[in-house]
Amino acid sequence: MSEVKVAILGASGYTGAELVRMLANHPSFRMTALTADRKAGQEMASVFPQCAALDLPRLVSIDQVDFAGIDAVFCALPHGTTQEVIAALPAHVKIVDLSADFRLYDLDAYNTWYGHPHKAPALQTQAVYGLTELKRAAIATARLVANPGCYPTSVQIPLVPLLKAGLIEADDIIIDAKSGTSGAGRAAKENILYCEVTEGLHAYGIASHRHAPEIEQELSEAARKDVVVSFTPHLIPMSRGMLSTINVRLAAGAKAADLRAAWTQVYGDEPFVKVLAAGVAPQTRHVRGSNYCFINAFDDRLPGRAIICSVIDNLVKGASGQAVQNMNLMFGLAETTGTNQQPLFP
Amino acid sequence: MSEVKVAILGASGYTGAELVRMLANHPSFRMTALTADRKAGQEMASVFPQCAALDLPRLVSIDQVDFAGIDAVFCALPHGTTQEVIAALPAHVKIVDLSADFRLYDLDAYNTWYGHPHKAPALQTQAVYGLTELKRAAIATARLVANPGCYPTSVQIPLVPLLKAGLIEADDIIIDAKSGTSGAGRAAKENILYCEVTEGLHAYGIASHRHAPEIEQELSEAARKDVVVSFTPHLIPMSRGMLSTINVRLAAGAKAADLRAAWTQVYGDEPFVKVLAAGVAPQTRHVRGSNYCFINAFDDRLPGRAIICSVIDNLVKGASGQAVQNMNLMFGLAETTGTNQQPLFP
Amino acid sequence: MSEVKVAILGASGYTGAELVRMLANHPSFRMTALTADRKAGQEMASVFPQCAALDLPRLVSIDQVDFAGIDAVFCALPHGTTQEVIAALPAHVKIVDLSADFRLYDLDAYNTWYGHPHKAPALQTQAVYGLTELKRAAIATARLVANPGCYPTSVQIPLVPLLKAGLIEADDIIIDAKSGTSGAGRAAKENILYCEVTEGLHAYGIASHRHAPEIEQELSEAARKDVVVSFTPHLIPMSRGMLSTINVRLAAGAKAADLRAAWTQVYGDEPFVKVLAAGVAPQTRHVRGSNYCFINAFDDRLPGRAIICSVIDNLVKGASGQAVQNMNLMFGLAETTGTNQQPLFP
Amino acid sequence: MSEVKVAILGASGYTGAELVRMLANHPSFRMTALTADRKAGQEMASVFPQCAALDLPRLVSIDQVDFAGIDAVFCALPHGTTQEVIAALPAHVKIVDLSADFRLYDLDAYNTWYGHPHKAPALQTQAVYGLTELKRAAIATARLVANPGCYPTSVQIPLVPLLKAGLIEADDIIIDAKSGTSGAGRAAKENILYCEVTEGLHAYGIASHRHAPEIEQELSEAARKDVVVSFTPHLIPMSRGMLSTINVRLAAGAKAADLRAAWTQVYGDEPFVKVLAAGVAPQTRHVRGSNYCFINAFDDRLPGRAIICSVIDNLVKGASGQAVQNMNLMFGLAETTGTNQQPLFP
Repeated sequence: MSEVKVAILGASGYTGAELVRMLANHPSFRMTALTADRKAGQEMASVFPQCAALDLPRLVSIDQVDFAGIDAVFCALPHGTTQEVIAALPAHVKIVDLSADFRLYDLDAYNTWYGHPHKAPALQTQAVYGLTELKRAAIATARLVANPGCYPTSVQIPLVPLLKAGLIEADDIIIDAKSGTSGAGRAAKENILYCEVTEGLHAYGIASHRHAPEIEQELSEAARKDVVVSFTPHLIPMSRGMLSTINVRLAAGAKAADLRAAWTQVYGDEPFVKVLAAGVAPQTRHVRGSNYCFINAFDDRLPGRAIICSVIDNLVKGASGQAVQNMNLMFGLAETTGTNQQPLFP
Repeated sequence: MSEVKVAILGASGYTGAELVRMLANHPSFRMTALTADRKAGQEMASVFPQCAALDLPRLVSIDQVDFAGIDAVFCALPHGTTQEVIAALPAHVKIVDLSADFRLYDLDAYNTWYGHPHKAPALQTQAVYGLTELKRAAIATARLVANPGCYPTSVQIPLVPLLKAGLIEADDIIIDAKSGTSGAGRAAKENILYCEVTEGLHAYGIASHRHAPEIEQELSEAARKDVVVSFTPHLIPMSRGMLSTINVRLAAGAKAADLRAAWTQVYGDEPFVKVLAAGVAPQTRHVRGSNYCFINAFDDRLPGRAIICSVIDNLVKGASGQAVQNMNLMFGLAETTGTNQQPLFP
Repeated sequence: MSEVKVAILGASGYTGAELVRMLANHPSFRMTALTADRKAGQEMASVFPQCAALDLPRLVSIDQVDFAGIDAVFCALPHGTTQEVIAALPAHVKIVDLSADFRLYDLDAYNTWYGHPHKAPALQTQAVYGLTELKRAAIATARLVANPGCYPTSVQIPLVPLLKAGLIEADDIIIDAKSGTSGAGRAAKENILYCEVTEGLHAYGIASHRHAPEIEQELSEAARKDVVVSFTPHLIPMSRGMLSTINVRLAAGAKAADLRAAWTQVYGDEPFVKVLAAGVAPQTRHVRGSNYCFINAFDDRLPGRAIICSVIDNLVKGASGQAVQNMNLMFGLAETTGTNQQPLFP
Repeated sequence: MSEVKVAILGASGYTGAELVRMLANHPSFRMTALTADRKAGQEMASVFPQCAALDLPRLVSIDQVDFAGIDAVFCALPHGTTQEVIAALPAHVKIVDLSADFRLYDLDAYNTWYGHPHKAPALQTQAVYGLTELKRAAIATARLVANPGCYPTSVQIPLVPLLKAGLIEADDIIIDAKSGTSGAGRAAKENILYCEVTEGLHAYGIASHRHAPEIEQELSEAARKDVVVSFTPHLIPMSRGMLSTINVRLAAGAKAADLRAAWTQVYGDEPFVKVLAAGVAPQTRHVRGSNYCFINAFDDRLPGRAIICSVIDNLVKGASGQAVQNMNLMFGLAETTGTNQQPLFP
């Protein structure tokens, strides 16, 4: 196909830089504009020295971009401002938005969790929730895709097929999730300084994290009833990686092997979702830098319960990798185009 | 009091070295013998260079120790061999055993989980389970104390008072635990190499970890009925530290605030157990190198459930610190003697 | 002796917190005032949760402290402001200043390196440079001690005796130094975020670091001539620890063994400086959390040269530990009082 | 071109796994045989779970490989055994050897440093030292390429052009090098356990590391006289990455800017060597996972000296990446084929 001209809005954050990494070797997408309002005028290499060897456009502010020459926009801006930026884009551009702004269908829920009314409610109704493996058809024809959050991605990939198949109960889902620190972004804050993160861990946002309503929205759809989950995220001394350890109550008679079988049926041909061999616990380091999600299930000591482990790289399948996967789909390209980097281990 | 002559059996492992650290400045306990069978003849400083400035006895093998001159033994040997070593000690020595060998009262359970019959069943009946804050009276008069495991310590401190008070249900306890790598010991194994541990995490021993029966034994005693728990440990890229995130079902009408109130009543005067201010999540790094256990409770999104977080340093309150605390108690010393090192943060 | 009432100015930084850790168990110094202007009114435990179990005075601003009731002041404030704060203290208080403000005897040099004239030049003439092992007599009678920088401490301990003994040449000293990230402080900056520091390293402040003139001042005094050094610091992915690897040209005929012999003569009775066994490379982790400095020397492949390694904990011997060691000396206490915490390894 | 059938000998080590990562997406090289004598019969995914999604041949022992069907061999075996294995390969296969076995031209030097006579001296004379940017013509026509060591790569790239141009003195080169832990391999040893490596650093192999003669051989060739270097490697708490900080004496009148100019002339068109902007210190994390080498030079405080910093990923440009780069060259492919993975930061 002919070259697709791409803009990355918000290229000075970690997800922006990760988009650059993935697009640098993409055969069809060409980075035409990179924006970073506060760093406009700088070379990308001065903001992210790992780009020193790449030939990239200089950073500009959003209002300096001529979107007439842009075909595709990755929007990696903070939530809130995103809505207005996207609302102002011309109709011909296709958009994958990595913020939370268009993920919640329910505008009241958005208002509750984000503290202000949604600023682009009409756009919200057009937005498609972009968990690729679960919403492929709708994504392919969408103009605006709301790229899922990292925690929700790691939870939905294992749970949605199980809820649809009736293999687990919807009212007793306990998610203990662990994230690398890049999920907190690059803005300088005391709580993510090296000395405050290394060699220790803790839970945060207990029972109050904004990814909970996103998870519940999608699990409710799968279960065809309202789902509330227990969701406890933890900050881990690592840059990248996310593990969701999920304790579920099984449907009567079901065992972990049934969960594995259901996944194999749904994901057997997926390039990026892998059910590991029985008994093997997924490790975040084994998907680092890749778009893979590795999952597995184990029978619990508590009768009738199972433990599910799901790992992704929060910046790849949990953000920029899935975003490129979605944009590939929206332009009729193979989903693996430019997204099949292999994991970097060790 | 007069000087207590102490032997540390197994001084070449991490818990042995930690005992040396804690005893180096202890006013009453004097390290008289340090054993390490395979490294007998070496200076402690050649095995653990952090001891270079200490005046310590040279490492010897166990059979080179004249126990007639020893008053107290810390046994930090691998499980299995421990039983026979302790059985051979003279009757006058008091013993704190850091292995798992004397923790399970039920010899059948021992056989099941450790794969061989117990070799010192008579001694087992004399052993006192040494979670100091919960078994103080029995420890004070014991000859042989079975020092608790690290995970069980982090779990029992918050849960035992709640089960005794009937504030939580005993049949729905879901423990997601996270440990630093020092818990795996110093023996060279591929899976704990730096490159295999750093910048990633994973669950291990899912539904099969040997600390599960120890936890269940003690929680059953507290609940006055058989308790089975869900217990999923994880290996975290940090040397020290342990966090147990525990999801519990509350008794009818109870809230997290009631759990906090119960703890304050039980632990209010304890030097080493602290209930943090409401809403503050305990972090492992804030107890590193200390004998503290920090705990807190939070209401869950799932109605009627709560999330409990409990942190310790696995080598201190989870092993050597509690061992010295117990030995202090057995010799009539204040529990804080030699154990009140403050946390090393950052 | 009677209790010494201590104020810590700047208790909300890492060196302030480290002073609290060291003084928490000090038998003679009692923390009477803790200041942190921007966090005045808060509990220390809300700023540093590792203090949750300590009984500490609430944070106040400096102008809230009644210095009439204070005997000793540890000043852990940023450079520049320190001068005015200390100039305003009443004459009866003894002061150890952890900033760089009073380290440079030459006020012109201060002006050059810090970009403004010194604001308390009279006080500067009274200040004693506080590298304890090398300036013990002067420190003991000083009112104001300028506590050395971390890099200078790690460099002077090995080099000063060698220069005095004429064992190394003064004009060819090449220092490649490596520091943990806590040396950069707790202020939130992008370049010390976890994700920017972990799993990588780099040099910084090449040929322009402000510790260079401090090193040169003291080495010049030892060598009795002007010394210029090559000094390249590096930031290492660790919280604590400092290693100076120093390449020196030996005096004619000298070998590494002669350097070791000279150190043994000078430091043989020192509690905190240890010459390791021949051939053993000092590791920063083996002094972590302690006031020790471990040193060693090795013959180089380049004829006539040697390699010296020196390790300290930058927050202890490189800052707060040496500060307490100095204050002990100023109050006639044993230098090891409250400073003999053993290293925390692993 | 037609498909090249590749064997990787020693696929169960870190450099073997890294070859798999780089070849997984290579358009012309197809992995036909993977060997690991002790793990023969296992799936690669059970040895390296990050390969779970790849379709790879099962591990076999070397004697199970039919080399008649193999065009190219990457040899990632331990030194010593490598010589005999390579000597037994049929004449039609092209070989890149990642061990040290064929790097030293001088068989006496080999004997001295490795403790036994070379077992394939005839092959040694055919071997071409494979620092791609410096030996391109010879590599292109070689049958057997001795892939350089990681430290030598990081040192030669900056120094060889400067010695050839006479910009630095050859008799005063002081190399302070720092390596990630993956350089020590995957064999289980106590000294590379997580707890022994994290949060600390130390020098090792001081004046005795086997990469010294390799560095000296190549620098001697460039300088056209015998060169001896000071070489002090350090182990850093990171998996990947290597920084050589090199202190050099400049030729009369030369400045750091001249070094930069010389590099720009030599490396200006190289895809993998980048001279950073003036004043920017190279960071290992900015080349992680890539085949890049970033270099820069700085004027020292010591008159007439300069400080050079050079960073690579030890497993990529320091091993497997350069190996694939060389094999591309040997088969007439663009050097960037399959080797242009962008750095993974953070």
